[in-house]
Amino acid sequence: MARAVVDKRREVIERAVAVFSARGYRGTSMNDISEAVGLSKSTLYHYFKGKEDLLVAIYEDVLEDNVLAAQRILDRSLSTQDELSEMMVDRVVYTCKNRRILQIFFEEEAELPRRLMPTVLAGRHAYEAVMTGLIDRGVAEGVFVISTSSTIVANSFLGAANWIYKWYQPRGPKSPEELGKEIAGLLMRSIAAP
Amino acid sequence: MARAVVDKRREVIERAVAVFSARGYRGTSMNDISEAVGLSKSTLYHYFKGKEDLLVAIYEDVLEDNVLAAQRILDRSLSTQDELSEMMVDRVVYTCKNRRILQIFFEEEAELPRRLMPTVLAGRHAYEAVMTGLIDRGVAEGVFVISTSSTIVANSFLGAANWIYKWYQPRGPKSPEELGKEIAGLLMRSIAAP
Repeated sequence: MARAVVDKRREVIERAVAVFSARGYRGTSMNDISEAVGLSKSTLYHYFKGKEDLLVAIYEDVLEDNVLAAQRILDRSLSTQDELSEMMVDRVVYTCKNRRILQIFFEEEAELPRRLMPTVLAGRHAYEAVMTGLIDRGVAEGVFVISTSSTIVANSFLGAANWIYKWYQPRGPKSPEELGKEIAGLLMRSIAAP
Repeated sequence: MARAVVDKRREVIERAVAVFSARGYRGTSMNDISEAVGLSKSTLYHYFKGKEDLLVAIYEDVLEDNVLAAQRILDRSLSTQDELSEMMVDRVVYTCKNRRILQIFFEEEAELPRRLMPTVLAGRHAYEAVMTGLIDRGVAEGVFVISTSSTIVANSFLGAANWIYKWYQPRGPKSPEELGKEIAGLLMRSIAAP
């Protein structure tokens, strides 16, 4: 896609997220979105064939962001502890900065077309697999000690980070980066070898 | 309320949760609920004046369950570590056993009548305050060490536990109680004094 088309597509998604967030996905029409974006309905349909298409785009964007973020961290060839810690910092920062889109992502799953569910689940499992892989590697290296499965550790860590979309206050005293470091530090202590 | 009325009310809520869970809150009508419960609409209206009234009841029930659970644990006068640990075990078990009602609780907040929001927020803050109180007390006693605020620790712990509604498989290998102990153990290590 040409750059201008990609930018416009992103802009439509961002405005749509704001409208979904205010009125709920079900309560929003393509009319509402065309008004919010300032595009005629026919121009809007050029980008997205309908509301469902927009929801699918939101899911694809978030999943792609997550996988790319994990890949960027793994490419740096850090120690196992630093890789897992950086993933948690990144996840907290991403959540703080994308609360509204994540609210849609986490809460509107039932609205997704069924044909997309395998893709969503595959994307989620790929991300979780990176985490459980790191945890298992750290246990094998003797730098992590866990008394449960790596899957349960990964899901607990993801829960602590994802839940931020519910409570983070952008006007609070801490920046996303500070919060990311503090929460990653807390979680890493729960599995650090003595 | 008479016992039979309370039981019937609970049953209506449970059936309604199943219908909301399958069709989404917005996509469900009082007709759907009256069919699912097997009550005439006029009898159903005797218990709940409308769909919103049911949603409010769901929120009130969950908040009340949480506060009572915390109170039961505090009444046992355990050590600070055991009190916090028991709260986490209890929270995990509750989440595993009430996934569907919690899905409504966590995801349909935007549908609540605005007049109820202060009550919901007060209930949530009361529960968080018990947790931050325990964390602060443990720090003062020297049994916990934290390098962030007790609010951030409490929210991270709650996130790890609440998120279970997204991934828990009732047919998985672990019982809610086993999962509760393992996750509480993991989280408690993140703040235990060396």
